[in-house]
Amino acid sequence: MFESAEIGRSIDKAVFEAEEPALREALLEAQYELKQQARFPVIVLINGIEGAGKGETVKLLNEWMDPRLIQVSTFDIQTDEELARPPAWRYWRQLPPKGRMGVFFGNWYSQMLQGRVHGKFKDAVLDQAIDGAERLERMLCDEGALIFKFWFHLSKKHMKARLEALKDDPLHSWRISPLDWQQSKTYDKFVHHGERILRRTSRDYAPWYVVEGVDHYYRSLTVGRILLEGLQAALANPQRVQLQPHAAPLVSSLDNRGLLASLDMTQALSKDDYKEQLATEQARLSGLMRDKRMRKHALIATFEGNDAAGKGGAIRRVTGALDPRQYRIVPVAAPTEEERAQPYLWRFWRHIPARGKFTIFDRSWYGRVLVERVEGFCSQADWLRAYGEINDFEEQLTNAGVILVKFWLAIDQQTQLERFKEREQIPFKRFKITEEDWRNRDKWDDYADAVGDMVDRTSTEIAPWTLIEANDKRFARVKVLRTINEAIEAAFARD
Amino acid sequence: MFESAEIGRSIDKAVFEAEEPALREALLEAQYELKQQARFPVIVLINGIEGAGKGETVKLLNEWMDPRLIQVSTFDIQTDEELARPPAWRYWRQLPPKGRMGVFFGNWYSQMLQGRVHGKFKDAVLDQAIDGAERLERMLCDEGALIFKFWFHLSKKHMKARLEALKDDPLHSWRISPLDWQQSKTYDKFVHHGERILRRTSRDYAPWYVVEGVDHYYRSLTVGRILLEGLQAALANPQRVQLQPHAAPLVSSLDNRGLLASLDMTQALSKDDYKEQLATEQARLSGLMRDKRMRKHALIATFEGNDAAGKGGAIRRVTGALDPRQYRIVPVAAPTEEERAQPYLWRFWRHIPARGKFTIFDRSWYGRVLVERVEGFCSQADWLRAYGEINDFEEQLTNAGVILVKFWLAIDQQTQLERFKEREQIPFKRFKITEEDWRNRDKWDDYADAVGDMVDRTSTEIAPWTLIEANDKRFARVKVLRTINEAIEAAFARD
Repeated sequence: MFESAEIGRSIDKAVFEAEEPALREALLEAQYELKQQARFPVIVLINGIEGAGKGETVKLLNEWMDPRLIQVSTFDIQTDEELARPPAWRYWRQLPPKGRMGVFFGNWYSQMLQGRVHGKFKDAVLDQAIDGAERLERMLCDEGALIFKFWFHLSKKHMKARLEALKDDPLHSWRISPLDWQQSKTYDKFVHHGERILRRTSRDYAPWYVVEGVDHYYRSLTVGRILLEGLQAALANPQRVQLQPHAAPLVSSLDNRGLLASLDMTQALSKDDYKEQLATEQARLSGLMRDKRMRKHALIATFEGNDAAGKGGAIRRVTGALDPRQYRIVPVAAPTEEERAQPYLWRFWRHIPARGKFTIFDRSWYGRVLVERVEGFCSQADWLRAYGEINDFEEQLTNAGVILVKFWLAIDQQTQLERFKEREQIPFKRFKITEEDWRNRDKWDDYADAVGDMVDRTSTEIAPWTLIEANDKRFARVKVLRTINEAIEAAFARD
Repeated sequence: MFESAEIGRSIDKAVFEAEEPALREALLEAQYELKQQARFPVIVLINGIEGAGKGETVKLLNEWMDPRLIQVSTFDIQTDEELARPPAWRYWRQLPPKGRMGVFFGNWYSQMLQGRVHGKFKDAVLDQAIDGAERLERMLCDEGALIFKFWFHLSKKHMKARLEALKDDPLHSWRISPLDWQQSKTYDKFVHHGERILRRTSRDYAPWYVVEGVDHYYRSLTVGRILLEGLQAALANPQRVQLQPHAAPLVSSLDNRGLLASLDMTQALSKDDYKEQLATEQARLSGLMRDKRMRKHALIATFEGNDAAGKGGAIRRVTGALDPRQYRIVPVAAPTEEERAQPYLWRFWRHIPARGKFTIFDRSWYGRVLVERVEGFCSQADWLRAYGEINDFEEQLTNAGVILVKFWLAIDQQTQLERFKEREQIPFKRFKITEEDWRNRDKWDDYADAVGDMVDRTSTEIAPWTLIEANDKRFARVKVLRTINEAIEAAFARD
């Protein structure tokens, strides 16, 4: 969930300064239009890691926009007035009216997260708080509110580097607050529980936006653009009176450094290394699948990837290690008539393996947020709600002991072109290449955006995505096998 | 929540037999239309008290309708197949396809309820299960499913009477299952936790229907009609592809014995008794409000009722006992401009009293499901979701220590007419009667239905409704005061 906000995104000062004036003007204009229409309020929630630029962003928004129409509320220690009333009263009294924008800096999420991190309660009580937040937001959106939820993120490395840099600088060391020091100790817990909260409360009508906070320019431009696009879409939609999915919910990254672009695609294995490592990993998998601890688990591996990225070859190297009675391969294509008569996830539920078994999905439930999204096979509302439904589905799987490994096999455009051409040349490979593959290729950027969003919204601690650099097939196959083996061993270690 | 299913509703055999053939035919027709359209599945959940006719109703539905298009699933002991997979797998594999009806007899609700009643877990875990059920149903409805949730109810008295009658009858004693005997011991817990589940999972798109099970004819006709109306409305709605509120969600009772009609309106107090009891209750209230245990609580009393039922007079008798610094009266009329710019509940949240204080709402948040519903001041979707939002709001109040007392002051039509006429005669009362009052009077039955639904859906253990028989003003005033006093004492006793 935080992967793509840990790659050190940044943009040049020059780019920022070139874009800022137009963004500022457009934001101001949207703000006045919001006031003019006075049809709905805008609520901006600011959460995330200390030092990731939360405060600076709020300050900047007030500079960019008309501060008279923005009401910033902070919620830390409860006042006497607030303590004498139900906890939600403090939020209700600060709600912005229709036509205004309210920035909630510290809010229901900060409270539940702090409480959980500091061990004041356990997951079940956290889930009750999450449920309460969901009900509140659902009601607000039912009443027409437009909610933006920002999580400002820093990788642990970046957070530590920042503290070190500030500490030794007499001019800036005052900027380190006690919260920062506390955070450096509780970082892992904070991110762990934060992810649970984000996973469960990112809904189509009020999604989370995770913003990497390391670079001032990147962070500011990203937040500004998300606000602007969301505002403009809502202002242009005369129907906005009921629960509506965000019309502009997902943005491709500004720095052209999507997660996929951050992969080192040059990684490769020599033939000899490959032979040796493949044999090792296959033997390891074979042993793990026969281990008696496997009786408490089922294993699911899903394979997605660019066309011609080598999914089939990788799957064959996995199954090569196994007894055919242990695994099943489920190829996922267009749904059958029977499947079309059921909810979307039904056709995957029916293939869930029993304990001790292994199911390989060749393409998977992610079709909805990949091909169906890009090709328009389902409505925007459908694929937007799919992220939440998928997270919920995968949480049920892992709660029941399923070990879930998800692969995206990535190749670059040049490699794909070469493979397509090769396929056209070789008679027995010609069936593998169709007109559709060439058409998909034209939508390369759309697919890259869809993959980025998919990983951002569905790579979770309980079911992380593994991106496989697959320009070199040998490297890819070994990494796939090794990832599966490590996932099984990690599950055994947790038992 | 169960009040109106504990009044011993029944209808004559003759009425039933007169209605049954037409209902049966219409149900069959709707069923074939459902198959024909094949646009959505229908899921019927059967829950409630043992012996309240769950099994008989399922049997009857299969007789009435084409059983080839109904698939009945029972879920009790998990099979080996099911135990080896995530818990929800058993429900997914039984989902009816589009065009079919699935009856889930024993389902996710029975499991969580049994677990809680038998102390396998506490409320926080129950809430997690409730949350999971909500996510599942939301997803199903997002995919177009039409869900009916029936809770078959028996009062404790009726349940015991039934067991006694069967026990001594050699021909029928075999009908008593071990579950029945268990239920007789756990009845209170079962109903207590059942209410929590119903309160939290009754949503506009999948509401609960509580059906009193004591009389076979009443029960069968009620279920048949709810199914028929809901089915017909969904079949006629070509938009039914996304989450939709039930178009025919609430039915006025078949036996013309609404909850209001079950009140004994002849209750009255003599002048002397009134004087004495009023003085006693006022003194009691005055003492309770000064009690130091009151510092941990706030008190809220809401007054709703028929026009001319005597709300103002009752409120004056309450405040007569108090120091003006202790209480505030909030008259609720049309919302102000400022209030219209906020979510519906905002104007009530702003008047929530601090601990130690008392707020009287002269009309309340129930306006949405009373006048706004009947007069069409808000959309059906708005008042349908209001029940859930109000329950959630009141739960937050009581969790924070607020003592909440809700009154409906009921008079009959004749009494209202006399009071209206009297008001027109007496100069200083003339301001109290307007054209609108006469217009409201024409909608007497609509208001009676709205009140019945309101009590069914929002009278909860944590915030019960008190119906006040107000034909006699003296009786009403004393009952109001006594109810408030008892609520405060009960709260002190729980501290």
